[in-house]
Amino acid sequence: MITSADNDKLKTIRKLQQKRWRTKLGLFSAEGEDLIGPDPVFLLRAGEDVEPELLDAVSTLGSGTRVIGVYRQQWADPTGDLLVYLHGVEDPGNVGGIIRSAHGLARATVVLGPGCADPYSPKAVRASMGSIFTHPPARATLDELDGQKVALDVTAERELRDVEVTRPLVLVLGSERGELPGGGEAERVEGVRIPVHADSLNVAMAATVALYEVANRMAADG
Amino acid sequence: MITSADNDKLKTIRKLQQKRWRTKLGLFSAEGEDLIGPDPVFLLRAGEDVEPELLDAVSTLGSGTRVIGVYRQQWADPTGDLLVYLHGVEDPGNVGGIIRSAHGLARATVVLGPGCADPYSPKAVRASMGSIFTHPPARATLDELDGQKVALDVTAERELRDVEVTRPLVLVLGSERGELPGGGEAERVEGVRIPVHADSLNVAMAATVALYEVANRMAADG
Repeated sequence: MITSADNDKLKTIRKLQQKRWRTKLGLFSAEGEDLIGPDPVFLLRAGEDVEPELLDAVSTLGSGTRVIGVYRQQWADPTGDLLVYLHGVEDPGNVGGIIRSAHGLARATVVLGPGCADPYSPKAVRASMGSIFTHPPARATLDELDGQKVALDVTAERELRDVEVTRPLVLVLGSERGELPGGGEAERVEGVRIPVHADSLNVAMAATVALYEVANRMAADG
Repeated sequence: MITSADNDKLKTIRKLQQKRWRTKLGLFSAEGEDLIGPDPVFLLRAGEDVEPELLDAVSTLGSGTRVIGVYRQQWADPTGDLLVYLHGVEDPGNVGGIIRSAHGLARATVVLGPGCADPYSPKAVRASMGSIFTHPPARATLDELDGQKVALDVTAERELRDVEVTRPLVLVLGSERGELPGGGEAERVEGVRIPVHADSLNVAMAATVALYEVANRMAADG
């Protein structure tokens, strides 16, 4: 039973709140009974492995937590029939939410391009609700990806549902401000929109709708 | 220029962080340039109306804010061709996100049933991204609503896309734990699912997909 805040495991958990340490150690932490993943490097349970107040002290949840696990970061290859490429999606809750939707709706891999939030931050891990364990993200730039590329763009004329999709398909999503990747590769990306009445959807909502639309169509094609 | 934290407007903003005061006063606050709504009761701009550090001190955003507006709460009637009924959706970010999606995808009104987060909490207002101004929510119980009622339920056999929809249509969404309203009315609600591979989608994501599906179908029917 850990009884001192000076314990190495507790210190590691505290460090993992910072991206620089997560990257250096190649680890991340996940808090809560509903976020216990496979093969932890270590797992601390309040009252069993550690005094509850010491665990609460290193928790990122306001209410404290009963269990924190530390895991190795996993990175997938940026390949597959359906990829979701994120460009400049800075909000960790959106990155985690998109990983969850991609896994839940389409078993699609999320590929993180430049300017995205760290998918292994506590907030992103929580928003992924465990999908980060079963379906880890990949890292790449857009020009490294093969296949048909369609970008969700509120200013586009064509609607996603009117576009023929082939495999592999890369759904490209930019920041909430609608910024999409620039450069030569951008010219080979077709802009499409999903019909919305209001200004825009949250990027995670837009991704969810697009995944639903595309996954349905791919399933129908067999 | 307000130069004292003892100012009545600043005190009001501080009070509005609590639901009890929001309900009592019938007001709410919205922070940030991107969340300025019509007809504020008052609006405080940092450096114009108030010393910036005093405004930051009553902000709910970690980074402080440049403008806070106070507005009257608006409540819509629970009527229309398409309603989204929420039961026990406790997370204010999800409630606000669903208000945003309902407005953006379908101009649908969100009806808050028992056990939902206050849509006028700072977090919900922020998640609605202004849709709370243009499309305010309603309050009702499920049996007060007219029309065809379909509940998103991961355990249902029928898929949403295979269900014929009529107007008015009420999309019923329960808590993340999948709890749906009980009682006699529940028997007249048809359970439907959206095809997912993983355990479940976040309730806001599920609502978004359902709204997209239903709004498309209603638009196609003319």
